Amino acid sequence: MSRLIHSTPRADGFRMPAEWEAHAGCWMLWPQRRDTWRNGGKPAQLAFVEVARQISRFERVTMGVNADQFENARAMLPSTVRVVELSSNDAWIRDCGATFVVNDKGETRGIDWNFNAWGGLQKMMYFPWDQDQLVAAKMLEIESLDRYQAPLVMEGGSFHVDGQGTLLTTEQCLLHPNRNPDLTRAEIEQRLSDYLNVEKIIWLPRGVYEDETDGHVDNLCCFARPGVVALTWTDDKADPQYERSAEAYDALRSARDARDRPLEVHKIQQPDPMTMTKEEAEGLDVVDSAFLRPAGERLAGSYINFYIANGAIVLPQFNDRHDKDAGRKLAELFPNHQIIGLQSREILLGGGNIHCITQQQPAG
Amino acid sequence: MSRLIHSTPRADGFRMPAEWEAHAGCWMLWPQRRDTWRNGGKPAQLAFVEVARQISRFERVTMGVNADQFENARAMLPSTVRVVELSSNDAWIRDCGATFVVNDKGETRGIDWNFNAWGGLQKMMYFPWDQDQLVAAKMLEIESLDRYQAPLVMEGGSFHVDGQGTLLTTEQCLLHPNRNPDLTRAEIEQRLSDYLNVEKIIWLPRGVYEDETDGHVDNLCCFARPGVVALTWTDDKADPQYERSAEAYDALRSARDARDRPLEVHKIQQPDPMTMTKEEAEGLDVVDSAFLRPAGERLAGSYINFYIANGAIVLPQFNDRHDKDAGRKLAELFPNHQIIGLQSREILLGGGNIHCITQQQPAG
Repeated sequence: MSRLIHSTPRADGFRMPAEWEAHAGCWMLWPQRRDTWRNGGKPAQLAFVEVARQISRFERVTMGVNADQFENARAMLPSTVRVVELSSNDAWIRDCGATFVVNDKGETRGIDWNFNAWGGLQKMMYFPWDQDQLVAAKMLEIESLDRYQAPLVMEGGSFHVDGQGTLLTTEQCLLHPNRNPDLTRAEIEQRLSDYLNVEKIIWLPRGVYEDETDGHVDNLCCFARPGVVALTWTDDKADPQYERSAEAYDALRSARDARDRPLEVHKIQQPDPMTMTKEEAEGLDVVDSAFLRPAGERLAGSYINFYIANGAIVLPQFNDRHDKDAGRKLAELFPNHQIIGLQSREILLGGGNIHCITQQQPAG
Repeated sequence: MSRLIHSTPRADGFRMPAEWEAHAGCWMLWPQRRDTWRNGGKPAQLAFVEVARQISRFERVTMGVNADQFENARAMLPSTVRVVELSSNDAWIRDCGATFVVNDKGETRGIDWNFNAWGGLQKMMYFPWDQDQLVAAKMLEIESLDRYQAPLVMEGGSFHVDGQGTLLTTEQCLLHPNRNPDLTRAEIEQRLSDYLNVEKIIWLPRGVYEDETDGHVDNLCCFARPGVVALTWTDDKADPQYERSAEAYDALRSARDARDRPLEVHKIQQPDPMTMTKEEAEGLDVVDSAFLRPAGERLAGSYINFYIANGAIVLPQFNDRHDKDAGRKLAELFPNHQIIGLQSREILLGGGNIHCITQQQPAG
């Protein structure tokens, strides 16, 4: 049973833990849209299988699959991965799925945000997104966890928390008129605070250049531990990413967290600019309502879009000269985690990366 | 994770418990076919909701629902019922779902039978039955329980066990050429024995008159406890059911169970003969491939088709003069169970009753 709870996590003593706190498991959704994933989804499916396989070495992985792909997903995934029927319009569970909160008694509940496919009728990525809107409730039903329905258009990738009262987000996304045009900044802060149980919200101006999500913070920067942030970076001032990272750096360095600590910021050199090839673009179905991904388009590649599993970092790699350096830096930032690099271009071609396709469920 | 196990339950020390042994919960599937359930499924949905609601007072109930009915089912069911997306072609989880087995260590596994929609291409109830065939695996994935794939066309309603090595079934169903034409009776016995871990199989000739399942035993008779059987009965020798019940009575009275006990047989007077009304028949969609249910057809009504929950018997009622007597008799047979009678004509119209739409998962 999964009851709908009408109060808020803050009122009930629940908070969102940091991603590095212990997990019960990880949730994913199976990629199959042929207008998002090239060649009928097959290359992306292989990439998702590898992400699931690696994470399942450290924690339980549940893969949600549309009915028509259940047998294929079950056959492609190792038996260590739990495969459940769970329809979606695409595979971005970080954004459409539940965000979990816990209390001191070890109870877990879920937050079901409003989801409008990254911009609603003004700028959705696809239409409709009716099944995405049910993903959070279905996850919580399977787990028999109670559910809060948050009055906020929000994706899980647009915030990060340190588990100690601090939240990172971007103005580009959360204040975008295609998300919550009727709410003021103060009202949005109040709702973040009520649902994630945070005291301090650090607003960064913009996300990564050409990020289709209107600047999700989870592609730009993240906490490595309380007081410590990793930020995607380039030293190339001619790159449009430069000023975005620089302004985020300044905002982070001038901020204090919920416990009044200054933030230590570690720069992670981005991969060299990448674009979608003609062959890749030709592998996509053309659908009127879909967001077009033309050849030559810059891909919003970033090493920051990693997943923190129990004891491991699952890190995007791009066959790029910066791959190894990113791995080394993250090994320093996460000395107790094994660093697992995975080639993730096929995920990036769909518009996100490893963090976008995963959602941790904290240990109860 | 749910591994496919290549041995057999018997070899691994697993057995199917009797239905009255402790349950972890009960599984159901949501009715929606408009060629099975009249008036777009709505009256049946209300009946299923009531069955789920009553059982959920005693044990966890999980309702599997096709994606297109998820929101409707979630809205109609009480929050005490877990609702999961789980596609099926119709709502008979007793027959298409997993049969659970347990071992002495408290571990649970599932058996995934071959399902051919009660007769395969010779006499299926509908076409296709592709989603029904996946129901067992999906149940076990959700629960992370390992799975045996049994090499036998079989429905859960075609056998009953006493949990002490004895199985009841009918020749009409299990020896029917539309089920396992290539297997001899001895081979079928061997497989039942290997998968359910029974030593003694009691064959009854035929099931209930006009039962669409080719004579499932779960509409005819069942164990009330080891050595004690309840049998649907009529004293009207002109009723075609008379000789079917009488021959089952004789077979039961001349049998010995796995522990060499004779069987005590309790007759439960059947409801008076019922037929589908014109109005009911007109509420069904006509579909070429569907089994037609014309007005005037005799319905295979039986009080035996009840579900044993933890501490309760959920008993079909038909607004019939025998309803109360059936309740009284079952109260005597199950002195430690509360008897809950539910009007179930809407379920019967679809071709089965409360036992057919439920499947117990034993406590691990």
